[in-house]
Parts: sequence; structure tokens; C-alpha cells
Amino acid sequence: MIVTVTPNPALDITYDLPTLRPHTSHRVRAVHEQAGGKGVNVARVLHALGCRTTAVLPLGGPTGEAVRADLDRSGLAHLAVPLGAGAPTRRTVAVVDAADATVLNEPGPELSAERWTALCAGVGSLLPRARALVLSGSLPPGLPAGAYGDLVRLAHDAGVPVVLDADGPALTGALAAAPTVVKPNAAELRHATGLADPLDAARALAGRGARAVVASLGPDGLLVATPDGTWWARLPPEVVVRGNPTGAGDAVVAALAVALADRTPWPRVLPHAVALSAAAVQAPYAGGFDRQAYLTYLPLVEVLPEAPSARSVPSG
Amino acid sequence: MIVTVTPNPALDITYDLPTLRPHTSHRVRAVHEQAGGKGVNVARVLHALGCRTTAVLPLGGPTGEAVRADLDRSGLAHLAVPLGAGAPTRRTVAVVDAADATVLNEPGPELSAERWTALCAGVGSLLPRARALVLSGSLPPGLPAGAYGDLVRLAHDAGVPVVLDADGPALTGALAAAPTVVKPNAAELRHATGLADPLDAARALAGRGARAVVASLGPDGLLVATPDGTWWARLPPEVVVRGNPTGAGDAVVAALAVALADRTPWPRVLPHAVALSAAAVQAPYAGGFDRQAYLTYLPLVEVLPEAPSARSVPSG
Repeated sequence: MIVTVTPNPALDITYDLPTLRPHTSHRVRAVHEQAGGKGVNVARVLHALGCRTTAVLPLGGPTGEAVRADLDRSGLAHLAVPLGAGAPTRRTVAVVDAADATVLNEPGPELSAERWTALCAGVGSLLPRARALVLSGSLPPGLPAGAYGDLVRLAHDAGVPVVLDADGPALTGALAAAPTVVKPNAAELRHATGLADPLDAARALAGRGARAVVASLGPDGLLVATPDGTWWARLPPEVVVRGNPTGAGDAVVAALAVALADRTPWPRVLPHAVALSAAAVQAPYAGGFDRQAYLTYLPLVEVLPEAPSARSVPSG
Repeated sequence: MIVTVTPNPALDITYDLPTLRPHTSHRVRAVHEQAGGKGVNVARVLHALGCRTTAVLPLGGPTGEAVRADLDRSGLAHLAVPLGAGAPTRRTVAVVDAADATVLNEPGPELSAERWTALCAGVGSLLPRARALVLSGSLPPGLPAGAYGDLVRLAHDAGVPVVLDADGPALTGALAAAPTVVKPNAAELRHATGLADPLDAARALAGRGARAVVASLGPDGLLVATPDGTWWARLPPEVVVRGNPTGAGDAVVAALAVALADRTPWPRVLPHAVALSAAAVQAPYAGGFDRQAYLTYLPLVEVLPEAPSARSVPSG
């Protein structure tokens, strides 16, 4: 079983309409609603890959009930820490028109130290049966920046490898606990280290405690810095993947978690991670991926034993 | 007691942010959430005026639960027709930035003939104690255009006066049942009759069955066409009312319902309706009004025994 933790989950709402025009009224053409938050998206990908998972997350209020109902409907096993009606789970609204998506993110309810302890205890109860632990997304208001470190240490004590996908202080505050893998994107990597060159930045992050750093560079693929070596994996530049990049990073995390659980060597992991990420871009909602695209991309991924320089990889 | 019916209620969500920029991501600064739909807004105004009310509405799913929780919190008595988890109450999202509001309206669940019958039976059970019935807002998908006529006839049978505030076929389809008062706004009046002159249009609508027509003309006040005469009531043009016009029409309907319940003559009703409407413009959310503004505006309202011509009243 792979356990995913989503400290700040959301009810993800997608509105479809022809054109968003500020300061007018719109009839929404279609509404899609699903349980969201990065760890939930990862669990959704894992479930679709046939892996047993449990999603751990705090839930409150009617929006929390809607998240729970969608998890049930989607067949995603979960362990919910109840927050009560006064702390409703946040919503995100993505307004998708002919051009692109406009996203509105609610801040989410506070998580008290006591509720965080309950969440950690829930994770602790699952670790004896876990083969990997995924920690994903922002920390809700009320938690210290080092909160993810608590869970990294619990996993180490249980001998379970950990993937951490977070940004800013939630990422840097957990490095001292030595997560097995961290997965920043290019902007997060730059933000955490102040370095423009992705390889320099990945090595700097590894130097601060992460055992391996997998940086997702969008169309430029994945850059991996580990004690065993560095790799760069990508689709050939002539393969152009169009679609919705939301959730592509979560697909990478899912592939990394499977690899950690199976103790797969890095050069064999990377094609799956890159192909799954590209296949996720072609799915309409986060947590989905196009199965046929995954199989099509898999043999096309190039794995190079050396990293790209700052010049060859655009830093977006 | 005044009974309000909202066949297509909503969970009204308001997001506050500095500037809405299409095709970017936004952190929402503050979230406000309340039970909505025109009949619910009317009930909220009536409750604040100290009138006993019961709001009748179908509710389903977690959003329906959130609406019910807000009605309870707001002290608004209600009779809910359950729709089940598969037919969740719709949401509206109003994104308010420094310039204005951008509104996203979900379509809402279908209301079956069987659920409509249950709603009519609920209204029927309240009519013996009702002094007025308010029918407000759009009809949900699945209902025939004449649906409001069913409730108008039930009210007539019970000797209860009816205010109907609807648009398009939901309005015109109920005229044959002879509602006591209909309250179109300028655009709805034009749309229903094809006539540009508000007085001509109001008289035409009265000719098709409505016993009285009260047209809300925004800053130009209210135009009333009844068998007893016509009136035009407004604030003097030098009084400029700024704010959020959403809910101003619902405040007019609330004032009309109180007047029908108390059998107040038209010239005495109109100052209250105009002042309450202006005071509603100054409240941040629909269903609210600024009590001090209401009292300030009340003595300023001019009631003229003749209607404005198309030339003197802008048709917006």
C-alpha cells in the first residue's frame, strides 16, 4: 500500500463556459466536481495504475462531505481526520474557457496542533503496511513550516521511503528530516535555492538533506540528482504535448512512489515518470491520465546520464 | 406569516480578491457563503423587518445541506423538499474585485413533476396560515413554463395574495392564473412585451392577467400600473445610491409582500419599497439592507400620480 497525505485538500470545481468576461454574469455550461489536493490526485493516479493506496486528509463541513463522497465514488480508500462543521474543506474553482483556465483558490481552514497530531497518528497506524509515503501540497494555515518533517521522521522510523512534493517553507522546513525524494518544479527549485541552473539547484537542495531531488521541468522533462548519479529524462523535443498541465506533477510523484515501493533503479523509473506526466497533461482533470498516451510515450522517453545546463533548459 | 417559494435556490458564494485576471491563478482573500435564490433573499429581508416567514425550497446534496445550515444560522424558517444526494443544489460564485462583480451561475438540478407536486403540497400546507405568497426567481430545468400558475391558483383558492417575480416564460406562463402583483425589472418588462415604453409595457402585462404590475427601473424607481391607477415613485435624481444592486429587486418584493399582507394602499406602499430597495443596494450581500439608509431615504421618496414617459425614463 502507498499512503498519500494531503494536509490541505480541496473540493475541486471546474466550470466550462465559452468565454470568461470580467464584470459580467455567466451561465456555466457544465460543472465537474471532484476530490482534490495534490495527495488526492496522486492517490487517483496510483489507483488507476492498480496500486493499493490510502489517502489521509483532514475533512470538514459540507465541502468535506462532498470530498468524502467523491473519494467513495472513485474507489479511493481514505482515512479522514474530522475537522467539524466550523472548519469546512476549501474549494478551488477552475473556470475553463476556449482559451485557458482561470483558477480561484480558497485559503482553507486552519489545522490545529491537536488535529495535526491526530493526522500523524492516522499515518502512523498505516505505516506498518505501507511501502511508500507521499506528502503533497501546501500546509494549511496554523501549522509550522517544519510540519512535514514530523511525518518524514515517522516514515524513517518505520523503514518506509518518503516522497515530498511541497513548495517554499513547507519544503525547506522538512529537508533536515531527510526525505527520500523531493520533487520541486523549476520555479519551486529556483525559489528554494536562489539558483538559476537546475542541476546546481538540485544539488544544493540535496546538500540540505534530501536524499534525491527530482525536478520537473515541464516540457523539458525530469532532472534527477542522487548520490548514485544524475540523470535527465525527457520526450524528444519534436513530441509536443498539449493539454492541461495541472496534475502532471502529481503523476510524476505517483510514478516515483511506485518506484520507491518497488525499489526500482532510477534509469528504469524515469521513462514511466515522464510518460505518465505527459499522459496526465492530456487528461481533462487532475489525477487522470490518458492510458493510450502513456503507452505511446513510454518507449519514446530519452534518459541521458548527464544533466542539462542552464543554457539548454529554459528556466520556466 | 409570509411564505416565499424559491424553486431554484442556490448556495451563493462570494470571493473577494484585488483583481480578476482571466487565465491566471488567484488566492481568494475572503470567502462569504450564504443561502441564496431570490425567494430566500426576500425571506431574509422580511425576517430583518420583523415579519414571520417560511421559505419553501427544494434542497439536495452537500450544497443543499450548506444552504439548510445557513438558513438555520440566519433564523429563517424553512420547509425543504428533499431532492437527494444525486441532485445537489446549485452554486453561484460572485468574484468581487476592486472594479465590480463577475458572476458564475450553475444551472441547478432538474426538478421532477413529482418533486414539484411535493413542493406545491408543502406550500398548500402553509397557506391556511399565510397572509401573502411570494414566488421568486427562475424555474429549474424540468418544469413547464406555466409551473408558477399552479401556485398562483392554490393561493387564490386559499384567499392569499401573490407576488410573482420571474422572467421570460416563467413570468408570461403564469399570467393567465392572474397573480396579484408581478414585479419585472425594465429589461424583463421589455422582454415580456416587446414594448420600449415602461407604462405601455406595464399596461400590456396587466392586460394579459396580472392584477397589478410593479416595474423596478433601477435608479429611476418604481412604476406601478393597477386597476386603481398608475404611480411612479422614486428618490430625487440628486440622491445617488452607490453599491451592489444584486438583491435590490428582492427588497422591493419584500416590501410589496408586506403591503399585500397588510392591505396597505399603493401610495403608502411605494415609499417603503423604494427606500428599502435603495438601502439594499448599500448592503454587501443580497438579502441585506442598511437599516439607517432605509430610514434616511424613506421621507425623501417622491410618489407621482402619473407615469414617466419613455423619454423621461432611460430604458436600462
